[in-house]
Amino acid sequence: MKFTINKNELLKSLNIVTKAISSKNVIPILNGIMFNLKNNGLELTASDSELTIKTFIDKDNIVNIEKTGSVIVPSKYILDIIRKMPSDEINFELFEGYKLKIYTDMNNYNLNCFDANEFPAIKIEESKTPLNFLIKDFKKIVEQTVFAISNQELRPLLTGVNFHIINNIMEVVATDSYRLAKKTVKLEKKVNDEINIIVPGKNLIELIKTFDNLENNIEIHIFNNKIIFKFDNVLFQSNLLNGTYPNTANLIPNEFEITTNVDVSNFNASIDRASLLTQGKDKNVVIMNIKNNNMLITSYASELGKVEEKLVVEASDKADISISFSAKYMMDALKTFDDEKILILLNSDVKPIVLKSVENDDLIQLILPIKTY
Amino acid sequence: MKFTINKNELLKSLNIVTKAISSKNVIPILNGIMFNLKNNGLELTASDSELTIKTFIDKDNIVNIEKTGSVIVPSKYILDIIRKMPSDEINFELFEGYKLKIYTDMNNYNLNCFDANEFPAIKIEESKTPLNFLIKDFKKIVEQTVFAISNQELRPLLTGVNFHIINNIMEVVATDSYRLAKKTVKLEKKVNDEINIIVPGKNLIELIKTFDNLENNIEIHIFNNKIIFKFDNVLFQSNLLNGTYPNTANLIPNEFEITTNVDVSNFNASIDRASLLTQGKDKNVVIMNIKNNNMLITSYASELGKVEEKLVVEASDKADISISFSAKYMMDALKTFDDEKILILLNSDVKPIVLKSVENDDLIQLILPIKTY
Repeated sequence: MKFTINKNELLKSLNIVTKAISSKNVIPILNGIMFNLKNNGLELTASDSELTIKTFIDKDNIVNIEKTGSVIVPSKYILDIIRKMPSDEINFELFEGYKLKIYTDMNNYNLNCFDANEFPAIKIEESKTPLNFLIKDFKKIVEQTVFAISNQELRPLLTGVNFHIINNIMEVVATDSYRLAKKTVKLEKKVNDEINIIVPGKNLIELIKTFDNLENNIEIHIFNNKIIFKFDNVLFQSNLLNGTYPNTANLIPNEFEITTNVDVSNFNASIDRASLLTQGKDKNVVIMNIKNNNMLITSYASELGKVEEKLVVEASDKADISISFSAKYMMDALKTFDDEKILILLNSDVKPIVLKSVENDDLIQLILPIKTY
Repeated sequence: MKFTINKNELLKSLNIVTKAISSKNVIPILNGIMFNLKNNGLELTASDSELTIKTFIDKDNIVNIEKTGSVIVPSKYILDIIRKMPSDEINFELFEGYKLKIYTDMNNYNLNCFDANEFPAIKIEESKTPLNFLIKDFKKIVEQTVFAISNQELRPLLTGVNFHIINNIMEVVATDSYRLAKKTVKLEKKVNDEINIIVPGKNLIELIKTFDNLENNIEIHIFNNKIIFKFDNVLFQSNLLNGTYPNTANLIPNEFEITTNVDVSNFNASIDRASLLTQGKDKNVVIMNIKNNNMLITSYASELGKVEEKLVVEASDKADISISFSAKYMMDALKTFDDEKILILLNSDVKPIVLKSVENDDLIQLILPIKTY
């Protein structure tokens, strides 16, 4: 393997593939990045057992390919080495088996690498009927839901995001059982067979970090045990979680006693301020009172003191309710709306709080109240 | 106590005094900020046992003073509360003993505070003959030396910076016994009596963070057991370390076998790159070879590989040396020079490495070599 490449071209690809490398890996090979130089370009691959990322740099974007070949490069050092290289063009040459010489006129790294044959075999397929999105649209879908997953490995299915597609309707749901985020998307094309999969939330979080040009397209290829995202020159393959995602449809009420129209930014700021004086077991719990068109958000911690925030809202006639909830969960949910105003829908102080746009039901955020008595 | 104040005016002062609050304090009073509202303005004070910071907001910068008074406010909450307040003008009112009401039209915090009488008595004096500096000059002096202090509490004196003044010459020295930074400053006025004090380095680091307008003046008042820095509306009082600072004068050689003139930025970048492939007990150790006008910086770690960096320098005739040192210590020292080029002065591979400006001896950085054989 011998080639010369532009520093920034290589850095861009390295930054993407290293997202598949987990700091928990103990197997040196899985902490490595496979460099595979072919006549048509340079393929970089990194993989842990659950996530594989592959990028491709076309030969037109490589200064010079003198000799093809492949080797596994330790990821811990290669990014820093390339980032700090003094010149725009960097030379690579494999010698004495698995030693990689990375050099310019003025400097020279001899980096000990690994035999490319030791890299796990990874089969990246394509389905005949991929889903298609604008990257920015798909990113939004993930951002509006993935925050609500559970971090508890005890309930592994809830650490994933459920994508359920029938005909041309895709429902995307995440829940940690205390809150739930649901996004409904109308697809351009119908799917032939129902799709009902659970994608690990942490992989989706890494995926959206690799997005660059948001106006480009992303193809999604779904298989029985894996999902592949294809965009720009990147292939991003994640495992799926095995099992049946809980049916959440009947958790979301259809009718509400109280409808309140609030300004998202004022409401969020009030909750943020009210949550400052919370501590101990009630950390982050605030109480929302709605009476007619007056909203009062309060919190109380015996040692610290108390807070009272007043807001003027548009509530249903005779609205009169006092309900407690996690300030953090409410602020997480509020962030997912682009709207200036949204609806807060309530039935009683022990029934779910539902947030949605004034315009449509595409995005539903549900938060369970907390009993404080 | 009752008053109305502009949010940003108060925030500026709070940000300064909270630097005296250590996260290690277990006494609630010492985690508090003393608010003392007098007819001429608002005094804020925070203190741990070794550091006291006091700021003053003149009555002209307070919207309204209705009733004077004082109280100790818990620092953990007050900064966030003020920072997140929705309006530019914030009202304060003390009620029911030590409860502080902080409010605007739309919100209201009742914060539990403490009796002002419980605050430790702090005497802030002024000496008749303070030293005077431009803030930016004094900041530079601290930055060029304080990084070289020891973090080892086992040698407490070396955790401080030594200020030694005779007549109109001030020598400022810091060392952790492996490296030494020395700055010599000519004062405008002679001092009558020799001054030889050790200021805790961590307090100097906090001090320079509180500097705002670098073109203003700073007065330094030195006493037997404390030092007071007075600037803008801030009084910053630190304890001194008790003991005699080691005599470092004869550690710095006066004559050198080899003089090398290097470009600071290229030299620094080469050392940074060479240090990437170091690990284990030799972490950060690089080897510098100078032969005639060629410099080679190398490092080697058997598991990882090796690096070679070439530089062209101007060295003494017949220069021929190979010397090992800590890359981190070298980069720390290089940062203190504003010069484009500096001198690296050497005698042998076991004698100190000295860095200084080409122009003068005002700033000396000394690094001990590391034996690698």
